[in-house]
Amino acid sequence: MVNPGFTGSPLNRVDHIRNDLDAFNALLNDWRGRVLGLEGLDPKVSDEGTLVWQSLAEVSLDLELILLGLHEDRAHFVPIIEARGGPPRSPAVWRALSMMPTEDAAIYGTARSLIDWHNGHRFCGQCGSPTKTFRAGWGRKCGACGKEHFPRTDPVVIMLAEFEGKALVGRQPSWPQGNYSALAGFLEPGESIEEAVRREIHEEAGVTCGAVRYVTSQPWPFGGSQLMIACVAEAQGSEITIDTNELEDAMWVTKEEARAALADAPDKKFGAPPPFAIANTLLRRWVAE
Amino acid sequence: MVNPGFTGSPLNRVDHIRNDLDAFNALLNDWRGRVLGLEGLDPKVSDEGTLVWQSLAEVSLDLELILLGLHEDRAHFVPIIEARGGPPRSPAVWRALSMMPTEDAAIYGTARSLIDWHNGHRFCGQCGSPTKTFRAGWGRKCGACGKEHFPRTDPVVIMLAEFEGKALVGRQPSWPQGNYSALAGFLEPGESIEEAVRREIHEEAGVTCGAVRYVTSQPWPFGGSQLMIACVAEAQGSEITIDTNELEDAMWVTKEEARAALADAPDKKFGAPPPFAIANTLLRRWVAE
Repeated sequence: MVNPGFTGSPLNRVDHIRNDLDAFNALLNDWRGRVLGLEGLDPKVSDEGTLVWQSLAEVSLDLELILLGLHEDRAHFVPIIEARGGPPRSPAVWRALSMMPTEDAAIYGTARSLIDWHNGHRFCGQCGSPTKTFRAGWGRKCGACGKEHFPRTDPVVIMLAEFEGKALVGRQPSWPQGNYSALAGFLEPGESIEEAVRREIHEEAGVTCGAVRYVTSQPWPFGGSQLMIACVAEAQGSEITIDTNELEDAMWVTKEEARAALADAPDKKFGAPPPFAIANTLLRRWVAE
Repeated sequence: MVNPGFTGSPLNRVDHIRNDLDAFNALLNDWRGRVLGLEGLDPKVSDEGTLVWQSLAEVSLDLELILLGLHEDRAHFVPIIEARGGPPRSPAVWRALSMMPTEDAAIYGTARSLIDWHNGHRFCGQCGSPTKTFRAGWGRKCGACGKEHFPRTDPVVIMLAEFEGKALVGRQPSWPQGNYSALAGFLEPGESIEEAVRREIHEEAGVTCGAVRYVTSQPWPFGGSQLMIACVAEAQGSEITIDTNELEDAMWVTKEEARAALADAPDKKFGAPPPFAIANTLLRRWVAE
């Protein structure tokens, strides 16, 4: 079974050290510590296709460091650089991410999510005053009102509706020509996963669903930090009415057609999502069912 | 099968109206509209134990209203009052919530989460300037840098470790005497649900787990807006080492013992979590397996 993308980090997150300033400082002064190499928000990649790590001595003392975790007794950090951004623009970065060991992609994803969060929370949402890093980079605290802010993760539901052995996939206008994927949307306050799945399928494709079953989950580190929650929902009919603000097209596909898409067959009906996207894992699990 | 707490809202969230200012204004001027009655952040409760709704005419024109959704063609709103707070202090409020129709508790939970979110996001985390409500109360926009903020929901994993037919439950010092519940903790950036479940059980109780299976989910509207994700994890041993910063005690219980706790039997080994908490649903599902 293929692991979902951006999972499988070997780092121990050592929550107890985050709250222990002495222990954190000791790690900052331990020469074995490693700092993640970045080019802007993108990962530096070695000739072998792995992440590049620098020694603590190579990093400017001005940079604040986040403690990503420990592995084989070595602390792993990432600097809080001033940068924000959505998904990588360069196809080379996407290629590198898809070729990288999954452990490396998982570490990079965590680092990128945290940097993005710090840049978006330099001020307190409650009172507008500047915030400061605390908890070894796993929080920011307001200097004025004292409110503590913690890295956010937004749950997103991503799902296939299923009807008579076929699954519902859709495409957004901005995607590469011919590509289709699972429908998806942010879970809202006051909803369960199951309710969000039914709401999103109905909003985007006009399809009413009953039972929802959970399949798997993965983090997604671009444009914020998202928790992708993959499900399959039982549709109660096959008539599609798409919301043209969200989708350009939607269609029902057979397992045979999904297999051809995942295998990138020459006569495929549609292009499948890339391997590190959970929609790919979801389609694979669905055709294997 | 009992629904998880705070789920089952009958309101249609009408996402398309949030982005349509004319349609939203039309609803604000429709006399059939209803506004949720609150006392501070707590719900007003009728003699029948249901939520209390006011007409639009009864509400001060100074209050901004969030469009919770439509039901039977009537718009349902809640005012953005200036109030923040954790879980209700009054036992009467908890009693009312547990007696209320689940549909009403779900509507109240959504409203409370949104009010709390607005109060915590009156300023832009990116630049510190004031933000303004937009999208019918489902977002705030910075007047200076233009950044758009959306209501957050924090995923929390809550789980039973299982070993040789017994489940692991723990108690926090602040809980009523004798009460035990499932372990729980916030999911962090860069983690899947399964990884967060294993990490939390290991951090809090020193138990290593393998496979994780998803059981159910529900929103939790107190102290922010949380998505509670309930799972069962296969433990690889039964030795417990508790993190005393998190837990006062932890123990393995049999299905028989869990049944007695859920039934509030006189000779019960521990007190079970209340019905509207997902830990209660999780225990019920586990004993029924």
